[in-house]
Amino acid sequence: MSRCSLNSATVKHASLTELVEVAAGAGMGAVGLWRHQVQEGGAEAAARIVSGAGLRVSSLCRGGFLTAADEAGIATALEDNRRAIVEAATVGTRELVFVVGGLPATSAPGQGPRPDAGDGDRDLAATRARVADRVADLVPFAAEHDVRIVLEALHPMFAADRAVISTLGQALDLAAPFPAETVGVVVDTYHVWWDPALRESIARAGREGRIAGYQVCDWILPLAEEPLNSRGHVGDGYVDFRTISRWVAEAGYDGDVETEIFNEEIWAADPAQTARTVAERYARYVEPHL
Amino acid sequence: MSRCSLNSATVKHASLTELVEVAAGAGMGAVGLWRHQVQEGGAEAAARIVSGAGLRVSSLCRGGFLTAADEAGIATALEDNRRAIVEAATVGTRELVFVVGGLPATSAPGQGPRPDAGDGDRDLAATRARVADRVADLVPFAAEHDVRIVLEALHPMFAADRAVISTLGQALDLAAPFPAETVGVVVDTYHVWWDPALRESIARAGREGRIAGYQVCDWILPLAEEPLNSRGHVGDGYVDFRTISRWVAEAGYDGDVETEIFNEEIWAADPAQTARTVAERYARYVEPHL
Repeated sequence: MSRCSLNSATVKHASLTELVEVAAGAGMGAVGLWRHQVQEGGAEAAARIVSGAGLRVSSLCRGGFLTAADEAGIATALEDNRRAIVEAATVGTRELVFVVGGLPATSAPGQGPRPDAGDGDRDLAATRARVADRVADLVPFAAEHDVRIVLEALHPMFAADRAVISTLGQALDLAAPFPAETVGVVVDTYHVWWDPALRESIARAGREGRIAGYQVCDWILPLAEEPLNSRGHVGDGYVDFRTISRWVAEAGYDGDVETEIFNEEIWAADPAQTARTVAERYARYVEPHL
Repeated sequence: MSRCSLNSATVKHASLTELVEVAAGAGMGAVGLWRHQVQEGGAEAAARIVSGAGLRVSSLCRGGFLTAADEAGIATALEDNRRAIVEAATVGTRELVFVVGGLPATSAPGQGPRPDAGDGDRDLAATRARVADRVADLVPFAAEHDVRIVLEALHPMFAADRAVISTLGQALDLAAPFPAETVGVVVDTYHVWWDPALRESIARAGREGRIAGYQVCDWILPLAEEPLNSRGHVGDGYVDFRTISRWVAEAGYDGDVETEIFNEEIWAADPAQTARTVAERYARYVEPHL
């Protein structure tokens, strides 16, 4: 159970203190944190709360939103991501997960295009090239702080408004020019389970030493009204955890396995019960195949 | 405008007679049909209605649902697809679009897994292999009737419950063992616009002579409550029609361009107005780049 990690987004309404309590109570070895939580009391205090409970920080979410095309937008993104890098180092994790952002045409996540969005604002190739440029900008700073930029492929259903990285293979292509200890990838079952190239991409990620995290949750149907919050407990949906976990293990990954679920019903549940369910599902569906 | 085709699903509540009237009235050269519509009055009558209006049938939707693992399910699927092949030939099109079906764990499209779904029912690789086997079973019959099995990649958001083919590249891999005149692919912007490998896959489809159709509609947000019906008129969303249409043209495709939109609001509109909007959007966003 020591590799099992509870991402704080799964128990969204718990404080950091409650989070580490319920994670430790369920026998887990780590927690995954989000920046807003770390920022509340400061990264040093957060580090003490986690280590005080005998836990590790498996990752910090999230850097990213790198797709701006204008100078002011680029400067703001770089500044914010440098802060995120410092926070990751301070809170005690090397792994800073990046959600890279959507098309510049986006009016807001989940909403339609800006009324004045031009053709160029729908240019995926150019948007993806800007992500590559911003990662290059941030690599020296990340290396200096011994933090890894962890590129997350999001499900293609979020390509317009949240992340123009849609497959693990594409994340690896973006990471390729940089050292593996500074730019990695995360395998999140929710986002990549459908990918016909998944086996090869996980194996490649392992060969290249870039697997920075393994996140698990299930694809359930029907989709929630807000599709972002459509995730289910491991075992409740369609994901083949036996196969994907085996591929991740065969690729040599021996780090933490975070459960990260966005789901209104699970958020309304008792955090201690949620942590127990997460631990139980991990033990049943994931751990035997690692 | 002669390459512009109105798929009957876009004006779901119109009869076949109304469909050809509004398509011809908007200056289009073709219509795309669905089987239930063709079956109502019979395929021969449908062929007369379409040709009587001076139009072609650009494609018939849909064959497929090939993922059953049990003998009875396999026999039923083969029988139904043989009927679909005969209907396509009779109604006057070579292009029979296949939606190949989801995981056997599916309780119903859009719904969660069957309560008794076992591990094997979530096995994507095995499910995809069964699709390949069923296509192989059907190829001789399709060739005999001079009909092409057109594999459609559906957006990965439908991988669990509707189609385990999720990318154009994967559709091409499945088609590869068979002659290009008997197994092809369709490029549907809604399903593939996000794919980082799209340019290469379209070029490959062209080189291999397998582009059997180009379907257009837009990715709009927020998603509808039933995500299947989330499509928008060309130009209303995030798809870069300029770029994708140019790739399709560069790949040598010179066939019909079908607009196929599933959308409750558009279904409630006057079919003649919808046909005019489709024609206008085609002329503005697609045709100049073909």
